[in-house]
Amino acid sequence: MPSVLIVGSLALDTIETPFGRVDNTVGGAGIYAGLAASLLAPVRLVGAVGDDFPQEMLSTLAQRGVDLEGVTIVEGGRSFRWGGRYYFDMHTRETLFTELGVFADFDPRIPEQWRSTEYVFLANIQPGLQISVLDQVAPPRFVVADTMNFWIERDRDQLLTLLGRIDLLLVNDAEARQLSGEANLCTAASTILGLGPRYVVIKKGEYGASLVSRAGHFALPAMPLPDVTDPTGAGDTFAGGMIGMLAWLDDTSEEALRQALAVGTAVASVCVQDFGVEALRKLSLEMLYERYESLRAMTTFAPCPLNQKPGW
Amino acid sequence: MPSVLIVGSLALDTIETPFGRVDNTVGGAGIYAGLAASLLAPVRLVGAVGDDFPQEMLSTLAQRGVDLEGVTIVEGGRSFRWGGRYYFDMHTRETLFTELGVFADFDPRIPEQWRSTEYVFLANIQPGLQISVLDQVAPPRFVVADTMNFWIERDRDQLLTLLGRIDLLLVNDAEARQLSGEANLCTAASTILGLGPRYVVIKKGEYGASLVSRAGHFALPAMPLPDVTDPTGAGDTFAGGMIGMLAWLDDTSEEALRQALAVGTAVASVCVQDFGVEALRKLSLEMLYERYESLRAMTTFAPCPLNQKPGW
Repeated sequence: MPSVLIVGSLALDTIETPFGRVDNTVGGAGIYAGLAASLLAPVRLVGAVGDDFPQEMLSTLAQRGVDLEGVTIVEGGRSFRWGGRYYFDMHTRETLFTELGVFADFDPRIPEQWRSTEYVFLANIQPGLQISVLDQVAPPRFVVADTMNFWIERDRDQLLTLLGRIDLLLVNDAEARQLSGEANLCTAASTILGLGPRYVVIKKGEYGASLVSRAGHFALPAMPLPDVTDPTGAGDTFAGGMIGMLAWLDDTSEEALRQALAVGTAVASVCVQDFGVEALRKLSLEMLYERYESLRAMTTFAPCPLNQKPGW
Repeated sequence: MPSVLIVGSLALDTIETPFGRVDNTVGGAGIYAGLAASLLAPVRLVGAVGDDFPQEMLSTLAQRGVDLEGVTIVEGGRSFRWGGRYYFDMHTRETLFTELGVFADFDPRIPEQWRSTEYVFLANIQPGLQISVLDQVAPPRFVVADTMNFWIERDRDQLLTLLGRIDLLLVNDAEARQLSGEANLCTAASTILGLGPRYVVIKKGEYGASLVSRAGHFALPAMPLPDVTDPTGAGDTFAGGMIGMLAWLDDTSEEALRQALAVGTAVASVCVQDFGVEALRKLSLEMLYERYESLRAMTTFAPCPLNQKPGW
């Protein structure tokens, strides 16, 4: 099976929600995406941590088939730390602190033997660094990139260069509007496609996600969950599920992308049901299969019968 | 084919959006729902207007099979008028004025020969009046009711009585949270089911709609539209499409309800593409069929293949 290359943060998160609090729990886009993707394909992870990062999580990743040769452990360095608080709606959040630590000097180096990885996920880091990853590898079969409002404002030119070199951009609805300058999400997606990528996925949190290409739209609602415990990492988990599924299928057709979006939705819905990466660690392929099929059952409806009566 | 009874307002709306303005255009929940439902089944409309209401619209309704015997035309009375302004996001709106006119004294009288109508839609009016409609008719096969924040705050007791007598409650996400006292929409829907109705439909505007029953969830995204011109009446059009489709199918199974939700979504997506009822007036059954099938194509994805490889 083809491998997945993931470049992103490994972090220690402090999270407060109306339902509880965790301190210095393992997180970061690279971790969430790596845990999700490694259910489906061999993963190659690139990132940096301090020597304060729990060895136990690195062992867990290795046991799941995540190759950690690209993870630099900086002696005497401090891992990236993030603190955030969620409000009662579990949607709005406030960042309490960000300590970049070793991530401040992060300059992704792709190991020589990883330079022809076919499926690549560039998690949300500075767009110039995302470009430098693509400069170091042979053209992959499929590249997914994430970004955020900060880079859309501050590094627009580099972001536009990146958009010309990726296959799929992952953004949330606010980022899609900000990047395109369009309030209407349908128009925003078309505008983004005009900037380079063949696909754009717009994440809408509890409202689901859409996949837009020149051929048209695909849209999925999110799984309805009574027990949203911690939304941290849901977007990265979604991305990891998507890229992992593309590698599992070894297919980048529209149909494969729809299946990958469903896997992303399913695995993200598991992620938010416990704090940090707890739920992801326990997730099996069988549970993922069942959640995917629940999602399909939940969105299936019969063909339109209106052409089947006299008078049509 | 069974008939549909619709009780709701007939109004003259003044609408401002970033894309234009219309003055005293025909609107009101009864009109929107009636136009949508009459594509699918014979409609019996109950409401009140002044003699300032355009005769042309009444003739159009009659031509489409809407029986107007339940519509009182008050001599010398003034029709209900509403004015609203939409902001750039086409989602948030401000009510500029409300002039109840003849609607202030509206007391729905169901004509004798309509008292065994099988499919009933009680549009958003005071819950006591919705109850009085049910008191006047033989128990229908299926009753859908709409409500709003104003009645949830002001007439909660009567609303709770109503909930024990209907099959399906239509609310938007904010109303679901307000009525249930639950922030989580999944829990909110369960709480509402505990108040009486067998089904609750939660409308989420541009994010689609969900149908929740004790058996589980069904969810549909909205049609992605680049040309949202005027959202006025979308929810009532959705309701009219739903109840019309249930009558067309003459079926209230879960599968029929899913199809009805898809028809509601399809017809509402047409409604918002022009000011007032313009787009609905031009809508044919063929166009509705095509939009339904577009929605199905846009939400279909292949079964989960994860159980099909060695290692499963």
